[in-house]
Amino acid sequence: MANIQQIAKRAGVSIATVSRVLNNATSVSPKTRSKVEDAIKELNYEPSMLGRNLRNSESRLLLVLLPNISNPFYTEIINGIQDTAIASGYHILLCETDSKPERENIYFNMVKNKLADGVISMDPTVNMQKLNELAEHYPVILCSEYEENGEIPYITVDSELAAYQAVKHLIKLGNEKVALITSDEKFLYARLRRTGYERALKEYNLPIREEWIYHTKGLDFHYGVHAMRMLLQNEDRPTAVFAISDTLAIGALKTINMELKDSEPIAVVGFDNISFSSMTNPTLTTISQPMYMMGCQATEMLLSRIKGENVENIVLEHELIIRESTME
Amino acid sequence: MANIQQIAKRAGVSIATVSRVLNNATSVSPKTRSKVEDAIKELNYEPSMLGRNLRNSESRLLLVLLPNISNPFYTEIINGIQDTAIASGYHILLCETDSKPERENIYFNMVKNKLADGVISMDPTVNMQKLNELAEHYPVILCSEYEENGEIPYITVDSELAAYQAVKHLIKLGNEKVALITSDEKFLYARLRRTGYERALKEYNLPIREEWIYHTKGLDFHYGVHAMRMLLQNEDRPTAVFAISDTLAIGALKTINMELKDSEPIAVVGFDNISFSSMTNPTLTTISQPMYMMGCQATEMLLSRIKGENVENIVLEHELIIRESTME
Repeated sequence: MANIQQIAKRAGVSIATVSRVLNNATSVSPKTRSKVEDAIKELNYEPSMLGRNLRNSESRLLLVLLPNISNPFYTEIINGIQDTAIASGYHILLCETDSKPERENIYFNMVKNKLADGVISMDPTVNMQKLNELAEHYPVILCSEYEENGEIPYITVDSELAAYQAVKHLIKLGNEKVALITSDEKFLYARLRRTGYERALKEYNLPIREEWIYHTKGLDFHYGVHAMRMLLQNEDRPTAVFAISDTLAIGALKTINMELKDSEPIAVVGFDNISFSSMTNPTLTTISQPMYMMGCQATEMLLSRIKGENVENIVLEHELIIRESTME
Repeated sequence: MANIQQIAKRAGVSIATVSRVLNNATSVSPKTRSKVEDAIKELNYEPSMLGRNLRNSESRLLLVLLPNISNPFYTEIINGIQDTAIASGYHILLCETDSKPERENIYFNMVKNKLADGVISMDPTVNMQKLNELAEHYPVILCSEYEENGEIPYITVDSELAAYQAVKHLIKLGNEKVALITSDEKFLYARLRRTGYERALKEYNLPIREEWIYHTKGLDFHYGVHAMRMLLQNEDRPTAVFAISDTLAIGALKTINMELKDSEPIAVVGFDNISFSSMTNPTLTTISQPMYMMGCQATEMLLSRIKGENVENIVLEHELIIRESTME
């Protein structure tokens, strides 16, 4: 297949002129345009789709930033993003930042270089200052984690209310000793979920005890396994635990299954409703986030921003799903 | 920041000439080169990393094709790919094909347009004809799923042997009625695992019964739940089951937990050793694939191909991990 250099040579013009013709720039004389178009026909030149998009300043690619793909919470949102993007003629590129700023830079440069039309960030560890700078000139949407009073449009759930309801459910079952397994409080979602936990305890005049609050260094199962082990070392053991993600809750269930085989089980509530959460034994009571819908709507918001439209922030409904882990 | 157009204008040359200078092309006269270099200095022009890479025909981006990211099997391989790529100064873009050819085309065009330096395909549904065409001119590695007697280098495990060992383990525990939950046999891994299953049965003179072989339409948990329900409807029930992925095995365990509460449990062996397989109750006996290492080595193979070196196919060691699902 011919390339743009060969077209330029055949037409006797510069590569930049061929590029201007392909871009329908008005600065090309009809005579020159005609020469280039003839060369294109003679050499049977087909600009590649991606190349053509680049020249049109429209890549039809959307970037999706996420910290890592090991958490099924993200994969279910991505399914919604993907389906909505495809239905509108867009494709997505998944960008795992692994919380490293140099990786972010690569991806942000893709947008600045028009290799992508916009960004959905699901990464709580993203450098918000850089993302805000990018969002001044390019379409950006925050999904799940967001910035309070920030400029970038977001879609999320009400983490504080959901956590409050989860803990209230545990209290109403008769639990006066409710532990919390949470992550680093530099993340807004962790701060909000802790606030909801504390609100429920206060409402029932139950004490907030630091030794029943465990902070993990990540969300993988094994952090939940370890957190629950630590909580069980308290002389005054909690009778119930609220974990701020299903992965942590499933790890906690594992420890409970192993260490408390014949004693009274500890009630557990998670957060997210990942598909695993109904496969555990006992199945997990959890806050259901509408992850697929969140992905769909985040994409619609981004496509609106790409068209230059304003969009409103969205707070989606959540649901408490009661399963076996709070029924024994 | 100045752009390439401004450099061309200041130097009084065409954009193509500036591009040739940036590419260190030999066709530029020393005088012209000097004019362009002066303009670059005067305007403080810094080509963007991605732009510079494009001009060098080196994007330092690797594409990773996968059918979907819901299966944790892929996410663990990706961690290995990512770490190895980063350590060599490369970044990866995850491309979910969702088994759709038009998505593959987009990604293949990125390689043809030098927007990516090579491809690791983990997608059993990829169009092998197109991938073979791409591999004639660009670096491509197959990871996990591969083509027998094909041209593209691959890294995988011995699926036939692993399945044989898994089923032999079940037989040695006293199970004479071993069922198989497998996926579509258009996939090589499914055919090989079935062959291994049959070899073990034959070796012990046990019959291969079609009613104990269930083909699923996918690998999600719920397919395993359903498959096990169907198998339990046999009048002559199997006493053990080998599933060709952990996700299917975990779904099968779920059905066994629900439907056989007080009767003799059915032994289950999975395949992959995803992290969730040690979180189930009972924990899952499974074939451990070295997923992280598979990702690391696939990436090293690809980087060698990018340097123009030949690489050998690799078959990694697997292991049978015995857990509670075959110990009751």
